[in-house]
Amino acid sequence: MKYDEKQISTDYKYHGAVINLRVDQAQLPDGQIVQREVVEHHGGVGIAMEDEEGKFFMVTQWRYAQNMTTMEYPAGKREPGEDDLTTAKREIVEETGYEGTDFVFLGTNIPTPAYDSEQIGMYYAKKGKFCGQNLDPDEFLNLSRMSLDEITDAIVDGRIQDGKTVAMTFLVREMKRRENTK
Amino acid sequence: MKYDEKQISTDYKYHGAVINLRVDQAQLPDGQIVQREVVEHHGGVGIAMEDEEGKFFMVTQWRYAQNMTTMEYPAGKREPGEDDLTTAKREIVEETGYEGTDFVFLGTNIPTPAYDSEQIGMYYAKKGKFCGQNLDPDEFLNLSRMSLDEITDAIVDGRIQDGKTVAMTFLVREMKRRENTK
Repeated sequence: MKYDEKQISTDYKYHGAVINLRVDQAQLPDGQIVQREVVEHHGGVGIAMEDEEGKFFMVTQWRYAQNMTTMEYPAGKREPGEDDLTTAKREIVEETGYEGTDFVFLGTNIPTPAYDSEQIGMYYAKKGKFCGQNLDPDEFLNLSRMSLDEITDAIVDGRIQDGKTVAMTFLVREMKRRENTK
Repeated sequence: MKYDEKQISTDYKYHGAVINLRVDQAQLPDGQIVQREVVEHHGGVGIAMEDEEGKFFMVTQWRYAQNMTTMEYPAGKREPGEDDLTTAKREIVEETGYEGTDFVFLGTNIPTPAYDSEQIGMYYAKKGKFCGQNLDPDEFLNLSRMSLDEITDAIVDGRIQDGKTVAMTFLVREMKRRENTK
């Protein structure tokens, strides 16, 4: 069975600071022409950084599009031309003040495949040396640290709903489980 | 510490079939005025439906914005005015041909909190009676069934990257683990 949809034409409706929006005409496997709305985003990273007590850095911040605060792992957007690991090393210092060490790539998360090109590179790291927070001028956030069990409980009871944070918790737990059963 | 950002003005750049896009001026806690790009989406649901052999229905389909096929739990968009459970009961039949029974709400997933209003209601269900698939005219998909361990392996090795599918797998596993340790 063939699934792929071919781009026939494209029309940019918006070019922005974080996202672009285009509306394409696409051809389906049966020849039909349909409209596809696509949000373009450069992608980003998330970092689950563990300290010497087995606790992970968490960020609580206002999320304007959701009109509420969320609790998430530190994360950030990729700058043009930047590879994911470089973004991860930069963002973890900017948001927590600590360097990350021993980075492990956990995988790629596709948050909204239906209409968004965004992909998120997910990393595990250990806490390195303190060198000072460096937030963007429009970032206001609160840092806390939670164990993997506390994070799991917060996901199950709905205090943590952020997609990448849930995915990263799953992957960190699986990584640790598989290491322990080697 | 206060985090909330107040809407000062809004300007719609696009009204579409699946999404709208607006650009707001917002006031930060320190009084600064910043621009916030917001994708508006009605939200949707995902359904992890288990059959009598402990296997879950999976959908493989082309995702135009990602330019590739993905493997995901059955999912769909909320129609205007529809509550999540109604959407879930409708979508599971449309995509798999089987009714769901014994629905359990697993939680809400926020896939892209930074710039998107989308929220996904996540459900577990058991396979009910066959009543026939009813796909949208632009839907081409392949159904398969996988055990929870097979799905977990596919997430760890990167064959499954869809955010809601990873979150739902985590929550189904936690639900079953907690039931077994009661």
